[in-house]
Amino acid sequence: MKLGFIGTGAMGLPMLRNLLAKGFAVTAYDANPAALDVAVAAGAKRAASCADVARASEGIVTILPSASNVQAAYLGPSGILEAAAKGTLCIDMSTIDPGTARQVAARLAERGVRYIDAPVSGGVAGATAGSLTIMIGGVASDVEAARPALVAMGANLVHVGAVGAGSVAKLCNNLIAGVAFVAVSEAFRIGEAWGVDPKILTDVISTSSGATWAMQKNHPVPGIDPKAAASRDYAPGFTTDLMGKDLGLAVNAAREGRVAASVAAAAQQVYRMASAHGFGRKDCASVYQFLKPGSKDSPV
Amino acid sequence: MKLGFIGTGAMGLPMLRNLLAKGFAVTAYDANPAALDVAVAAGAKRAASCADVARASEGIVTILPSASNVQAAYLGPSGILEAAAKGTLCIDMSTIDPGTARQVAARLAERGVRYIDAPVSGGVAGATAGSLTIMIGGVASDVEAARPALVAMGANLVHVGAVGAGSVAKLCNNLIAGVAFVAVSEAFRIGEAWGVDPKILTDVISTSSGATWAMQKNHPVPGIDPKAAASRDYAPGFTTDLMGKDLGLAVNAAREGRVAASVAAAAQQVYRMASAHGFGRKDCASVYQFLKPGSKDSPV
Amino acid sequence: MKLGFIGTGAMGLPMLRNLLAKGFAVTAYDANPAALDVAVAAGAKRAASCADVARASEGIVTILPSASNVQAAYLGPSGILEAAAKGTLCIDMSTIDPGTARQVAARLAERGVRYIDAPVSGGVAGATAGSLTIMIGGVASDVEAARPALVAMGANLVHVGAVGAGSVAKLCNNLIAGVAFVAVSEAFRIGEAWGVDPKILTDVISTSSGATWAMQKNHPVPGIDPKAAASRDYAPGFTTDLMGKDLGLAVNAAREGRVAASVAAAAQQVYRMASAHGFGRKDCASVYQFLKPGSKDSPV
Amino acid sequence: MKLGFIGTGAMGLPMLRNLLAKGFAVTAYDANPAALDVAVAAGAKRAASCADVARASEGIVTILPSASNVQAAYLGPSGILEAAAKGTLCIDMSTIDPGTARQVAARLAERGVRYIDAPVSGGVAGATAGSLTIMIGGVASDVEAARPALVAMGANLVHVGAVGAGSVAKLCNNLIAGVAFVAVSEAFRIGEAWGVDPKILTDVISTSSGATWAMQKNHPVPGIDPKAAASRDYAPGFTTDLMGKDLGLAVNAAREGRVAASVAAAAQQVYRMASAHGFGRKDCASVYQFLKPGSKDSPV
Repeated sequence: MKLGFIGTGAMGLPMLRNLLAKGFAVTAYDANPAALDVAVAAGAKRAASCADVARASEGIVTILPSASNVQAAYLGPSGILEAAAKGTLCIDMSTIDPGTARQVAARLAERGVRYIDAPVSGGVAGATAGSLTIMIGGVASDVEAARPALVAMGANLVHVGAVGAGSVAKLCNNLIAGVAFVAVSEAFRIGEAWGVDPKILTDVISTSSGATWAMQKNHPVPGIDPKAAASRDYAPGFTTDLMGKDLGLAVNAAREGRVAASVAAAAQQVYRMASAHGFGRKDCASVYQFLKPGSKDSPV
Repeated sequence: MKLGFIGTGAMGLPMLRNLLAKGFAVTAYDANPAALDVAVAAGAKRAASCADVARASEGIVTILPSASNVQAAYLGPSGILEAAAKGTLCIDMSTIDPGTARQVAARLAERGVRYIDAPVSGGVAGATAGSLTIMIGGVASDVEAARPALVAMGANLVHVGAVGAGSVAKLCNNLIAGVAFVAVSEAFRIGEAWGVDPKILTDVISTSSGATWAMQKNHPVPGIDPKAAASRDYAPGFTTDLMGKDLGLAVNAAREGRVAASVAAAAQQVYRMASAHGFGRKDCASVYQFLKPGSKDSPV
Repeated sequence: MKLGFIGTGAMGLPMLRNLLAKGFAVTAYDANPAALDVAVAAGAKRAASCADVARASEGIVTILPSASNVQAAYLGPSGILEAAAKGTLCIDMSTIDPGTARQVAARLAERGVRYIDAPVSGGVAGATAGSLTIMIGGVASDVEAARPALVAMGANLVHVGAVGAGSVAKLCNNLIAGVAFVAVSEAFRIGEAWGVDPKILTDVISTSSGATWAMQKNHPVPGIDPKAAASRDYAPGFTTDLMGKDLGLAVNAAREGRVAASVAAAAQQVYRMASAHGFGRKDCASVYQFLKPGSKDSPV
Repeated sequence: MKLGFIGTGAMGLPMLRNLLAKGFAVTAYDANPAALDVAVAAGAKRAASCADVARASEGIVTILPSASNVQAAYLGPSGILEAAAKGTLCIDMSTIDPGTARQVAARLAERGVRYIDAPVSGGVAGATAGSLTIMIGGVASDVEAARPALVAMGANLVHVGAVGAGSVAKLCNNLIAGVAFVAVSEAFRIGEAWGVDPKILTDVISTSSGATWAMQKNHPVPGIDPKAAASRDYAPGFTTDLMGKDLGLAVNAAREGRVAASVAAAAQQVYRMASAHGFGRKDCASVYQFLKPGSKDSPV
């Protein structure tokens, strides 16, 4: 399958390299010329636009920062829809809301162009190692058609359901994870305020109903787990900015689905405030740092 | 050690039975005469007041519904403080805020009366089986002195720290657990709204960063885990009322410690609303039921 | 100016009647045939689609329930964009998010079609009386061109700024109002729980820093103000469903603007829960009813 | 009436001066010797403890920073309860939760000591000018007995209800005001993010359903209202620390009353975070500053 690849940034570039390494011929485009230059140097063929990619490709991978970028790449001027042949298979690996995924899919379907959403987890490290988890939404035959490309980039493929379901699964997982990091941080700040040893508190919680991946695999308190981001000055990992983005998409998906999402919304706003106050590019566990206690002489 | 026991309700009675079964002589009191009658029938000696218990005992176990009950039992008219001999060892197993625990301890200490806080987890089932987890705050020598009584009631004793630390540990654990049940419920309601199979969603999340005890041990969606409360019409387990109470105490401990607790506070209010709308005596996982989606014809 | 009118529902129909009464010739369309029949009976010319309206009109008024309806009417198949002549003036009076308004405007501008956003407040009563407040975003010359049509429908026209600014102004106002109804309801539920007379509480607050339109013009407690919705079984007025929708749009606009909106998000979720529990079509002040207190025997 | 006065700090001292200026003989105490020295220099008689004040007084005014200070002053060692004669009239003007007010009142009543709660609004400026608003809870005859002292300190006396009702009224008012400052700040940050002129936005909202004291009397955006704290680098006025404290007390009163308080709790946490990040001693309208937007290059 002749592949196109749109979005050769921090995540996209190592994924593209894995496709090239597995022998795919790839035509690439990125709105940022410098990013595209690196992709071409890595072995991709240069395209001048998304439409140009579409003309050269039977399958197209997109991985872009936001839903508006995805809409523009697919539906905008010089976008994929303008030039894609009937039957072209589009694989959107961006993290976006399921509503946009379905809207794009519907517009493409009017012209006989196929679309699956296939967001990933695993970060730049997983993208480089080809070990990403890929959560996939789409028709089974399209998912099968995409499989050779997907296995070049990821190690764990899950076909969740119809178009949009990949996005839903990623956002639901990150909703829980994002809320958990804030909850764990609040709990340990309370423990600290009352003089409780965080190691003992960790032991108690890890065998009880408060056990979470967030505490056990990426403990937000520095010094508890040497492998955790907290013990490496919160070097990411998964950034506060990105966790805030994903919680925002989850809350938006809740809104469109007429579902209340109180703790997700509260956590989203905490990450937003943390980002505004300088924690955006640190690991999301740095929300613990942001939640520093008030001065001892403030009234209670 | 001659023991006193104050609070022979749903939790206290089976704990008292275990003490009696292990051979302790116990003098009991409960403000509710019917509850006290059952305790006496079980083998306890009847007391007429908290002070009366104190006069008869070297060690006193209290397990009461709220901080104001604890204050009254210890510091109020005909309370423990009025009658306890110097050196008496008080073991408060109620779930209260650490501020009240420390306040009571300080008042008792003025008279040379000893106090540890030792809240439990495990519910009525654990109380009956003698398998409670007991989180303990107090001076080491007091904790050791209490150990024979505690091992008669619980299987897992953790000495967390100074007075109040037991309460802090319990509240911090339940803060995370309580938030997690709401977060998991929100995630699965979003999944439902977007047509995602909850079993597949469970599989995805259970191996990813959203993994939590709440989803894996007491899944809030009916039919996923036959052992979970959700699959038994949300029979408790741990009720919505109690989870709301514990989150409220945690948020209060955060306030007194000058710590922000945004997601804990949001979750607390959700449980409060769920209780007001009829879910108070169901398992706390029934927050999933409370969070039912809006009508399809409501605008978004 | 030959006018088109798309969206002849509860709000649109009386607005259309006012345009007809002022002598405008109007070609109308609604996706619901019954709604369109009523509009035709009122004197409008029937169109078969949005594109059909566009072909017949120099100016087009749209008032639709949601952003996705607006996108479909303007950009979808048989939409306005397919058929509108260069220079056509589009007046979108729907309440949508400013991001969608700007996106639609940009797509129209590519074809030389003009667009202003002009959401309204005043409800069905104001639409019928022609007394709506209209908050307008757009280029000054477009706003002036729209003025004759707008003054036929509203009494208070405010040109807020560029395209999208009308939506921003409406959402910001409703953010504050929506939050205020919840805050006032919480305050009066606290007062009730502690036995304070709501009339005295109203007097205290109305002359102090807690004074708000919400309490003074539409008091949420029944019996305080006979003119308020609360004293008429919460007959709307402005419904819980619509307040939740507008808060959701405001929170979404905050997200897209990288702004934290903690209390708006909390209030949005309360309205969402109230809607799910049967308060959606009551006046938004019925959030007071939804926030009923818990049972006296629930633990605290 | 021979008066006692406990708490001669920033608020208490000018109130004490007004009592002295009106001819009351006052015996004063403060745990801080320097604060007490100033009170004595102003004309008060020095006492060595709260009990010492009680021995010298027929009426006692207390104005202290927190509920725990109030409990200690009344019920602790060398406290008022130890020494007050039967019939002594205690006037607590601290801002505390109604539960503590009622608890203290009940303990005093056991010994025939009278108690009213009488928290104030108006700040240091109002305390100095003798123009405070005083919200009073207590038995009518006690309120009448306290009136001569109260009118020496305040200009607007409101008898709200039974003991605790003064505190409830103050907290309910500040709940709404505190939430409103956050809501208004969120709205104007959204407006700013979308390029809307804050003066026009102010005009729109001030005549619509979003009108609030917070925006109209203490606009949080610098430069809109020259009299507002925002235009004077957020010099207080009423500080972020104090607003956070009062919201915390309101949320606690809601908890004890089994009432949900979602937006109050969300606002409380925002003030708590603002305090921790350096805004505690600025005017509470500085929450607008704290809610600065995120970087333009953070993903949404």
